[in-house]
Amino acid sequence: MNSKKIAGEKAVEFIKDGMIIGLGTGSTVYYTINKLAEKVREGLSIKAVSTSSSTTKLATQFGIEIIPFDEVDYIDLTIDGADEVDNNLNGIKGGGGALLYEKLVASSSKKIIWVVDKSKMVSTLGKFPLPIEVIPFAHHQVFNKLKSLNLNPVLRKIDHSCYITDGEHYIIDLSLEKIEYPYELDNTLRSIPGVVETGLFLNMADMVIVGNEGKVEIVNSKSRL
Amino acid sequence: MNSKKIAGEKAVEFIKDGMIIGLGTGSTVYYTINKLAEKVREGLSIKAVSTSSSTTKLATQFGIEIIPFDEVDYIDLTIDGADEVDNNLNGIKGGGGALLYEKLVASSSKKIIWVVDKSKMVSTLGKFPLPIEVIPFAHHQVFNKLKSLNLNPVLRKIDHSCYITDGEHYIIDLSLEKIEYPYELDNTLRSIPGVVETGLFLNMADMVIVGNEGKVEIVNSKSRL
Repeated sequence: MNSKKIAGEKAVEFIKDGMIIGLGTGSTVYYTINKLAEKVREGLSIKAVSTSSSTTKLATQFGIEIIPFDEVDYIDLTIDGADEVDNNLNGIKGGGGALLYEKLVASSSKKIIWVVDKSKMVSTLGKFPLPIEVIPFAHHQVFNKLKSLNLNPVLRKIDHSCYITDGEHYIIDLSLEKIEYPYELDNTLRSIPGVVETGLFLNMADMVIVGNEGKVEIVNSKSRL
Repeated sequence: MNSKKIAGEKAVEFIKDGMIIGLGTGSTVYYTINKLAEKVREGLSIKAVSTSSSTTKLATQFGIEIIPFDEVDYIDLTIDGADEVDNNLNGIKGGGGALLYEKLVASSSKKIIWVVDKSKMVSTLGKFPLPIEVIPFAHHQVFNKLKSLNLNPVLRKIDHSCYITDGEHYIIDLSLEKIEYPYELDNTLRSIPGVVETGLFLNMADMVIVGNEGKVEIVNSKSRL
């Protein structure tokens, strides 16, 4: 059984009847959504909020009811993937481009579980390029500022055009190799006019389910217990 | 001569040949743009960056060349209006809905002049509702958060629909009456996920030109001199 599948499916065990669920985006959450749909067909009653147009499409196809985020006051449990997770359960997200909505949904969630395969677990964040979402109007100035800070910015493109997020913004990826002080970096990035959100998800996950060669390992956050 | 006209026109005296000019938005800057167009027709050579679709339209009609913000590294001088200005030249902007682009252009400007009529000068900011620009996806959660902070939020509407900014976001206006600690408030607002920008423009203006009954008064920033 592949590692993404085993982690993604395991998370569904934490979903209880009547919950409002936040559904993340990506190749591991795909298995969560698939398994959740199975449970829903068997009678589980939940409502879900989606973090991206692709997840909305997928969940709807599978028969999961998606309700607008602006119709809920809070979310009981959000299940999402991550591109990198360190030992403190801080993570980088946004490789798939959904970081803004993922962070907004996470910020309104009582509990957050990330599902990943073992390859995503790292001792120090930063090998995965850090995505930041920026206002298109100011992308040139933000890019120059990031460059002057030696943060190796790359404007994300798709077929020679700027990649456009669900929120109608651009993404700039930072090739950093190593993020030694994630909180300080996050503050620096947020202070740049035109930066909407960063892919640093710090002290947000309560639990990480790690798939590894047919087994799952569950890591609980020390700081959020 | 009306106070807005005399202040708006005065600012044009600070525009020199060859400059890249940031053009703000609003009823006082209207007179700046009008007067600037006159100078351009007389031979003044400048390029301008616009902070809103309405200013772009106006300037273009008047024959001023507008260049995209992403084609400039910095702006020599930005001339903009303000809804309220206090004695420290801190201000509230965004009554007209252009706060995000106005702040982005201001952040890349070497010098900033605000043009206002006397009625905009206050001892304490806050009588004018403070606009904040928010991600539509999360407007409900941001609204609830602002309400829980007793900040009296009102979602800006136009003809029963949400007002949409040039950046495709919503605006929430805060009826505060008095902002005693503008820096603290700005930090609080910025820390709320889904807030893109606030209408607090703190320590940004270098000079304010105040029109008052046929005369202008020039106030220079103490902290930015």
